[in-house]
Amino acid sequence: MTYNIAILGASGYTGAELIRLIAGHSSMKIKALGGNSKAGQRMASVFPHLRHMDLPDLVTMEEIDFSQIDLCFCALPHKTSQEVIAKLPKTLKIVDLSADFRLRDPEEYQRWYGNPHAAMEQQAEAVYGLTEFYRDEIRAARLVAGTGCNAATGQFALRPLITAGLIDLDDIILDLKCAVSGAGRALKENLLHAELSEGYHAYALGGTHRHLGEFDQEFSAIAGRPVKVQFTPHLMPANRGILATVYVKGDAQAIHKALQSTYVEEPFIDVLPFGEAPSTRHIRGSNFCHIGVTGDRIEGRAIVVAALDNLTKGSSGQALQNANLMLGIEETEGLMMAPLFP
Amino acid sequence: MTYNIAILGASGYTGAELIRLIAGHSSMKIKALGGNSKAGQRMASVFPHLRHMDLPDLVTMEEIDFSQIDLCFCALPHKTSQEVIAKLPKTLKIVDLSADFRLRDPEEYQRWYGNPHAAMEQQAEAVYGLTEFYRDEIRAARLVAGTGCNAATGQFALRPLITAGLIDLDDIILDLKCAVSGAGRALKENLLHAELSEGYHAYALGGTHRHLGEFDQEFSAIAGRPVKVQFTPHLMPANRGILATVYVKGDAQAIHKALQSTYVEEPFIDVLPFGEAPSTRHIRGSNFCHIGVTGDRIEGRAIVVAALDNLTKGSSGQALQNANLMLGIEETEGLMMAPLFP
Amino acid sequence: MTYNIAILGASGYTGAELIRLIAGHSSMKIKALGGNSKAGQRMASVFPHLRHMDLPDLVTMEEIDFSQIDLCFCALPHKTSQEVIAKLPKTLKIVDLSADFRLRDPEEYQRWYGNPHAAMEQQAEAVYGLTEFYRDEIRAARLVAGTGCNAATGQFALRPLITAGLIDLDDIILDLKCAVSGAGRALKENLLHAELSEGYHAYALGGTHRHLGEFDQEFSAIAGRPVKVQFTPHLMPANRGILATVYVKGDAQAIHKALQSTYVEEPFIDVLPFGEAPSTRHIRGSNFCHIGVTGDRIEGRAIVVAALDNLTKGSSGQALQNANLMLGIEETEGLMMAPLFP
Amino acid sequence: MTYNIAILGASGYTGAELIRLIAGHSSMKIKALGGNSKAGQRMASVFPHLRHMDLPDLVTMEEIDFSQIDLCFCALPHKTSQEVIAKLPKTLKIVDLSADFRLRDPEEYQRWYGNPHAAMEQQAEAVYGLTEFYRDEIRAARLVAGTGCNAATGQFALRPLITAGLIDLDDIILDLKCAVSGAGRALKENLLHAELSEGYHAYALGGTHRHLGEFDQEFSAIAGRPVKVQFTPHLMPANRGILATVYVKGDAQAIHKALQSTYVEEPFIDVLPFGEAPSTRHIRGSNFCHIGVTGDRIEGRAIVVAALDNLTKGSSGQALQNANLMLGIEETEGLMMAPLFP
Repeated sequence: MTYNIAILGASGYTGAELIRLIAGHSSMKIKALGGNSKAGQRMASVFPHLRHMDLPDLVTMEEIDFSQIDLCFCALPHKTSQEVIAKLPKTLKIVDLSADFRLRDPEEYQRWYGNPHAAMEQQAEAVYGLTEFYRDEIRAARLVAGTGCNAATGQFALRPLITAGLIDLDDIILDLKCAVSGAGRALKENLLHAELSEGYHAYALGGTHRHLGEFDQEFSAIAGRPVKVQFTPHLMPANRGILATVYVKGDAQAIHKALQSTYVEEPFIDVLPFGEAPSTRHIRGSNFCHIGVTGDRIEGRAIVVAALDNLTKGSSGQALQNANLMLGIEETEGLMMAPLFP
Repeated sequence: MTYNIAILGASGYTGAELIRLIAGHSSMKIKALGGNSKAGQRMASVFPHLRHMDLPDLVTMEEIDFSQIDLCFCALPHKTSQEVIAKLPKTLKIVDLSADFRLRDPEEYQRWYGNPHAAMEQQAEAVYGLTEFYRDEIRAARLVAGTGCNAATGQFALRPLITAGLIDLDDIILDLKCAVSGAGRALKENLLHAELSEGYHAYALGGTHRHLGEFDQEFSAIAGRPVKVQFTPHLMPANRGILATVYVKGDAQAIHKALQSTYVEEPFIDVLPFGEAPSTRHIRGSNFCHIGVTGDRIEGRAIVVAALDNLTKGSSGQALQNANLMLGIEETEGLMMAPLFP
Repeated sequence: MTYNIAILGASGYTGAELIRLIAGHSSMKIKALGGNSKAGQRMASVFPHLRHMDLPDLVTMEEIDFSQIDLCFCALPHKTSQEVIAKLPKTLKIVDLSADFRLRDPEEYQRWYGNPHAAMEQQAEAVYGLTEFYRDEIRAARLVAGTGCNAATGQFALRPLITAGLIDLDDIILDLKCAVSGAGRALKENLLHAELSEGYHAYALGGTHRHLGEFDQEFSAIAGRPVKVQFTPHLMPANRGILATVYVKGDAQAIHKALQSTYVEEPFIDVLPFGEAPSTRHIRGSNFCHIGVTGDRIEGRAIVVAALDNLTKGSSGQALQNANLMLGIEETEGLMMAPLFP
Repeated sequence: MTYNIAILGASGYTGAELIRLIAGHSSMKIKALGGNSKAGQRMASVFPHLRHMDLPDLVTMEEIDFSQIDLCFCALPHKTSQEVIAKLPKTLKIVDLSADFRLRDPEEYQRWYGNPHAAMEQQAEAVYGLTEFYRDEIRAARLVAGTGCNAATGQFALRPLITAGLIDLDDIILDLKCAVSGAGRALKENLLHAELSEGYHAYALGGTHRHLGEFDQEFSAIAGRPVKVQFTPHLMPANRGILATVYVKGDAQAIHKALQSTYVEEPFIDVLPFGEAPSTRHIRGSNFCHIGVTGDRIEGRAIVVAALDNLTKGSSGQALQNANLMLGIEETEGLMMAPLFP
């Protein structure tokens, strides 16, 4: 059986990544590509790396016949995504890659994103898309909200530790090193090669990054009490990858065991032998997440390092994994490609 | 049907690339991985990006039972490759990625590589592995000699023009820009990040690069007279990619038409609309080769630019394409993955 | 004696580079910094790397009292530069870094830049700023037109050969590899890190790059007949540097000798021993230009490779060198810093 | 007055950086360059970027007449440095850039570096070279031990806070992002461009990095009690720069004030306005260190970020600053060059 797929926002990096992944999928066919600002253009001119594929031209959303579509990926900017999804058929299966349906509490949404929530009805049915922890809900969902790429990385490192009660909940520090494609294809001075290459820096310091909304929601829910982490992202002179260095107070060996037992059956999460550390170069272009644990020289402290590709496991790969579940396809279909190294 | 595969030299970049590609192949199974210097090690420690795969440990060549192997890839250094292949079973299908069987004339081999040819018997049956131009011979071959990555790029741009008699054979200039993985995983000062990043330079100037042996052999054979090109490679601050800027004397439109008609049915060679130029970023990690043609402001001169990934289409992807032919598998099997961008 | 300096267009890369260089100059003081779009801002916020310097805030051009200024650098976009310079005091010494006064023939200017020349009077007195070849004129000039960075690189390699009549004037190919800062701080998709890093390509193919206007003007003047070169620039994944690979027909040894004898007394032009090739990593951040010559395996052909830093010797360093001459200061003052490596 | 300088270990990156800096120094002359493994070679072939300088050839240490030398920089590997310095004239002024004289307690030295201390006599007179905090001792010293580059960065961020008693001494986390030139010119697989570009990772996890010996010694001395920090370095795909993100418990505003008042008169340490964060791109190639402070959303926590160039302020620039003091030269001489950006 072949499922018909639409992608809205196909002219951005996550849209292109979805197309790259679906190109290797055995039972999905791309029927429509929406991209309002570039409607009418051929994908080969927007993304020359996809020129060998037989893809539909970019169209406006209005031109798409959604009655023919089995599942729609929305790779639109936040705020736009809410407005668009509110107008889509109420029965259409949707995986949204924006931030618009990640936060269950609309007040939290407004606090972090500035605008009031514009699709409360859809929010009520949205399932948080961290596949490994919401698998059953996702299978049954109509609308899945893809997680933030930083939020996914931090949660893979921390959820099992919070669940098992292994760490001090009031002393969690996430120092993230994020490659530049996470910022999208926006034309900003700090994303220019001449500014970023050979230069790197922290940003959104002091707890102002929006992905903190997801950390707060999820960690507090697991712990059954408010949990606030410290989270500082850094912009890296690299195109793909997130490396999360997580500092926690707890027993390193117990932490390693908890991660291993949580992920032992997971096809995409790989816990390294104790004392080894992952690198972004070993997950590039893949849906894998590598996690390493080391004990510090100071008794009772551990460092957990997690690495994944922000565009794949952190975004479009996760979206496809969720879509597979929603359509009853094998979860790993189209996602087992090995990382690109070097 | 599943074919059993062995890879010798599995601890280098082309070996790792072969494994990455075979991971997505429907009818090949890796049975043995040879790597004498790292024999006994697990692939997950040599190449952590392959840790999710169920791969055999590295062994010495002597430990491999070749009677169980349907096809063997040799990704060994030149000279070593000849010595090893001379000792392998005479009926084993082999794709060699080294330079050892590319030059039909053993004197030419010695002239370019310095050592006398050590496997003359095997040389006699070796087929030159530029798939698009030796398809029938490769299908019937036991031993296929993978081309040089620079040699492949230049030939994709030039062979159709020489065949069609469209260009001045005495005035061909190839200015190549080669990413660093083409130099392999060797520990050399000029391959260090601190030396290469933010720095680039020409090397092997004046006609001393060994891939000229292939250009001379192939172009002269097509033309039916000696053809000598000028070829200057440049080392780029990038990991993957070859961009060949080829300067020829001839009619640009006719050249474009010749390339189009030659490659119109080819699944991996894509001729861009006249006047467009390819970029290495649009073929990274894929088996595609993009070719563009532009006319110069000086009448009667044309610039042909070809781009491919040195590790894929320039080496391991080509090798897999040839192996598919040799085993009677669909030629494109395992090779249609879209490029990784960004 | 200390000279008062103004810089118009101080918020771009060449403006910043001028400030960096003047910081190490013994007898220049920056009195005014013009930058209309960012007027009112402190330089420390526009360019945090200059925060240790005691610099005036950015102002509009109208706010500058030019009667106090001994020399003014204009680092404005072309077209704007003409309009601005036409309004500046007629006695003010000016070094213009734009393209606006490089071409003596206003029709040529219009042909390459699209707009009619807007400062014909000033054009009449402008001196072409390739210091090593126009030293006497520059010393006496009021208005000096800085050369294009690509144009400078190509001329350093070729002028002595044309002067000496050593090469075939109808068969000159310049294949340039240009780092991204040459494109300025403009917000364009192809200048983003995610697009450019790990990707490189040719642009302005076929003789459409505007710096050809300078090559045509200068080479034809030297030769006493029209000379048209082929020139193809390539955008590199690097921040600084131009590497020109120049293919000529002529005797390589004679070419090397001509370059050596031309530049033997030059403080900034360094001809390498025969057969050696320069690298951009060895001139980064400096005012030096390295030139190498190699003979090709084909008799009668030579490859000349020149490397310089587009922002320094190709632009702001050249401008300071010219300003030194115009003010009667030692030509090398403020320009002898060693390259930054690694 | 001009001082005669010798540099031992002139063929490494810190040696080259010393030469680059001394090139812009008004009263130092390089008399001898030692580099045993490359003795006899010209500096222009070892470091082509220095070819314009009139430098002595590399010689063995035995060939140097130290009676003519006013000050000797030792840029040798640790262990070798001790052995060499033990044999140098007892009255020769020396700035050592290795780790060999940084730790006052020889047992600590052996614990972190593995080998017993081989120059106890010299250790007794060595002064720790963190200029801003040991200025008087350095002025009077014969032998100054340059600090580790990571150790310097962390101390600039933390010393004033410990001195002022502003932070919890048992909860200090340093997450450092270090460019690759800090690892020197060693031929190691993880320093290759193909491995490091587009890849980054943590190393020496868990408190095993040797620079911890310096942190322990210095912080404990200031605090008057044992202080142990958590320190995790990360290798960056960049050539120059260290960015230290330091997590502390204390009042952010008070911390900012303490840093400001400590460094207000310092020529090279620049404390940014509260809430701003530094970037490595703004200190590249310079002797400046930028420090920023932000308060976290969690009350009572602060993030201090410090950036410097590991080869300049972290190593050779610091060494020259110390040498200036030892010779009675203005401390900033040769060190005020602006950073190279972009």
